[in-house]
Amino acid sequence: MAMKVALLGCGVVGSEVVRLLNERSTELASRIGTPLEIGGIAVRRLGRTRGTGLDPELFTTDAMGLVTRDDIDLVVEVIGGIEPARSLILAAIKSGKSVVTANKALLAEDGATIHAAARDAGVDVYYEASVAGAIPLLRPLRDSLAGDTVHRVMGIVNGTTNFILDRMDTLGAGFAESLEEAQALGYAEADPTADVEGFDAAAKAAILARLAFHTQGVTAADVHREGITEVTAGDIASAKAMGCVVKLLAICQRSADGTSVGVRVHPVMLPREHPLATVNEAYNAVFVEAESAGRLMFYGAGAGGAPTASAVLGDLVAVARNRLASTAVAEGAHDTGLPVHPMGDTITRYHVALDVADRPGVLARVAEVFAGNGVSIKNVRQEGHGDDAQLVLVSHPAPDAALATTVEQLRVLDMVRSVASVMRVEASGDDG
Amino acid sequence: MAMKVALLGCGVVGSEVVRLLNERSTELASRIGTPLEIGGIAVRRLGRTRGTGLDPELFTTDAMGLVTRDDIDLVVEVIGGIEPARSLILAAIKSGKSVVTANKALLAEDGATIHAAARDAGVDVYYEASVAGAIPLLRPLRDSLAGDTVHRVMGIVNGTTNFILDRMDTLGAGFAESLEEAQALGYAEADPTADVEGFDAAAKAAILARLAFHTQGVTAADVHREGITEVTAGDIASAKAMGCVVKLLAICQRSADGTSVGVRVHPVMLPREHPLATVNEAYNAVFVEAESAGRLMFYGAGAGGAPTASAVLGDLVAVARNRLASTAVAEGAHDTGLPVHPMGDTITRYHVALDVADRPGVLARVAEVFAGNGVSIKNVRQEGHGDDAQLVLVSHPAPDAALATTVEQLRVLDMVRSVASVMRVEASGDDG
Repeated sequence: MAMKVALLGCGVVGSEVVRLLNERSTELASRIGTPLEIGGIAVRRLGRTRGTGLDPELFTTDAMGLVTRDDIDLVVEVIGGIEPARSLILAAIKSGKSVVTANKALLAEDGATIHAAARDAGVDVYYEASVAGAIPLLRPLRDSLAGDTVHRVMGIVNGTTNFILDRMDTLGAGFAESLEEAQALGYAEADPTADVEGFDAAAKAAILARLAFHTQGVTAADVHREGITEVTAGDIASAKAMGCVVKLLAICQRSADGTSVGVRVHPVMLPREHPLATVNEAYNAVFVEAESAGRLMFYGAGAGGAPTASAVLGDLVAVARNRLASTAVAEGAHDTGLPVHPMGDTITRYHVALDVADRPGVLARVAEVFAGNGVSIKNVRQEGHGDDAQLVLVSHPAPDAALATTVEQLRVLDMVRSVASVMRVEASGDDG
Repeated sequence: MAMKVALLGCGVVGSEVVRLLNERSTELASRIGTPLEIGGIAVRRLGRTRGTGLDPELFTTDAMGLVTRDDIDLVVEVIGGIEPARSLILAAIKSGKSVVTANKALLAEDGATIHAAARDAGVDVYYEASVAGAIPLLRPLRDSLAGDTVHRVMGIVNGTTNFILDRMDTLGAGFAESLEEAQALGYAEADPTADVEGFDAAAKAAILARLAFHTQGVTAADVHREGITEVTAGDIASAKAMGCVVKLLAICQRSADGTSVGVRVHPVMLPREHPLATVNEAYNAVFVEAESAGRLMFYGAGAGGAPTASAVLGDLVAVARNRLASTAVAEGAHDTGLPVHPMGDTITRYHVALDVADRPGVLARVAEVFAGNGVSIKNVRQEGHGDDAQLVLVSHPAPDAALATTVEQLRVLDMVRSVASVMRVEASGDDG
């Protein structure tokens, strides 16, 4: 007997899922052990069958009616956003359906509620497509590393910003210009805020932190977030001079004593030899450091209809198999409860470039400010002279608050004409 | 009630598994939903408890008695090799135990028998550690890409040979010298045959082909295998001149018409911009091209006690959870039955460097040989002159047999003094 799938949303991803469910129906049936059949598709407006070649009767505007229908087994949600997605998913779960979703915003904001509801109902909620598109990442974190201790997850999880930063790096272009190119090529939306301000990456960071550290309470609001709108051609040039590239990273890190976690999204200078540094264009990649497994990286397309549909179908096969076996994965039942510590307590390293007066005693005065905040300097170099004199410093690891204070104090020193560039630096090693 | 684990073998990996089972017992119990307890450890010789701090009573030389003991739930096999591992695993399965193994040789030779026995008994056999150590790879291939169609899997799956080739590339050293260094550093064994002749990689290739193409009949014997012992400093220099590196790759590829698969291990010239080209030292990485997901890569440590133990523990958590839920993964039930085509039918590209007489007509004669075999030349360049004249050619894709014949015919041309270098080339794109 076929399993019936309800689809919520039929845009770029949804229509690709429909196409593949038809095209690969024999293979999927064989891999699952029973055929999948589309039981209904909820759309906002009827009137077009969207070139799917499907029976127009399958389409409905009554999403709630569809997800609670008795004959539906599995629900695929690709509407996105918090509501009505949350109400529909919770209703589906309560009606005993398993759910596959690509909804990062909802999982980041309210994943704990969703998972708790799924556990109560004994159904699955799978969401591989919500982070890093087609890259098999969430399942490896949840399952393959289940016997290991993850120390840090560091990822390029937003293709738009990676494309923009890659252009700035390879062409020496500015942010505005690179954003325009990304928009022209369809890599950035007309309103690019969610991407360039790091909201998208922050939602994914919250999901990654929850899986990596088995701590269920982390939400997007807990994530320290800085976007790339203030990254300048000068920052990129400074990074190059240090053998680094600038990447927008989502970083989830266990504190040194293991009692809390830091979750943050911000631009980072990364050594060119780091595996993440070679990830260009709109590709995504996630780097994981675990106690036993060591350094792992997962790389692939982070967005797009086909890659996202691949992840959705992989999940669909899994939840269908689980359903056939009358089992479900009780995600989130194990909660370490590790709290998120404030950004100020996170140990980071800063790169600071200062336009300074070219006279004796400047370095001494600057070094004094670092020392006064308990921050050691790893290296310093002077570039140019006269009115072009620039002092470039890289700190040793220190609490982010101490580094931020250092920069504020440098900003008002009379021999510092301006702070030309401030950016955090991640090392290849484990001192970051 | 605790689940009891029997451990077969207590060497580097086994003792690390024991250590981690103790050290992480609370976390593991919480993630699984019940504690794990070591029920017994089978070793070849008693007499030392191997610094585990365990009750000496746990150790036994009667492995068969241990795996069939009524109170044992899960069996971890880290002995390696075909026998007695196969008999022990089959006996464990028949007694209703789920099995976690790192045994690539056994799975490559007789995986179909093992999986069939597991399906009959309704138990799990997990083996993430058998390929690419800690890199979560098999589960993503089996599960995450279950809804996709994999076209090609291309991997650096042997750390020893990657270390040797990396040294040859960075230091310009020869094979013998680099092998000695690898042995001195513990990256290569005293008898390096299994690694440098490609046997280890071939076993992994068979396992990857089975998972990627859902074709259960592929064994190590079906894999075309060439090692790296004949790779010369000249080959590496030739590769460099083309902007390539030399890597030993395991390549599993669906034929263009989708009716068969090719599975092979051999040295390859790979463009430096390919993601696999940057994988250095003893790291492993596997590159996957799937219809919807696009290009994916998985990177990490391919061997070593801790990384392998991480993969074993991840599997142990999974099979324990499945057991609690009274379910099992029926791997291999879906068999596409795709046959393996001979190496000669595989479409490849060749790089050929010929030491030639420096006189008119040489290129014409050489080109004629290529044409006579239906092989087009992509590019050709002449280097040196007089007695040092070398003709370097790269072909377009053609059946491997036609390319091999071309080289044999070139070898006996009177104006060809010698064939200095022959190696297959993989492109970044999809024409390889």
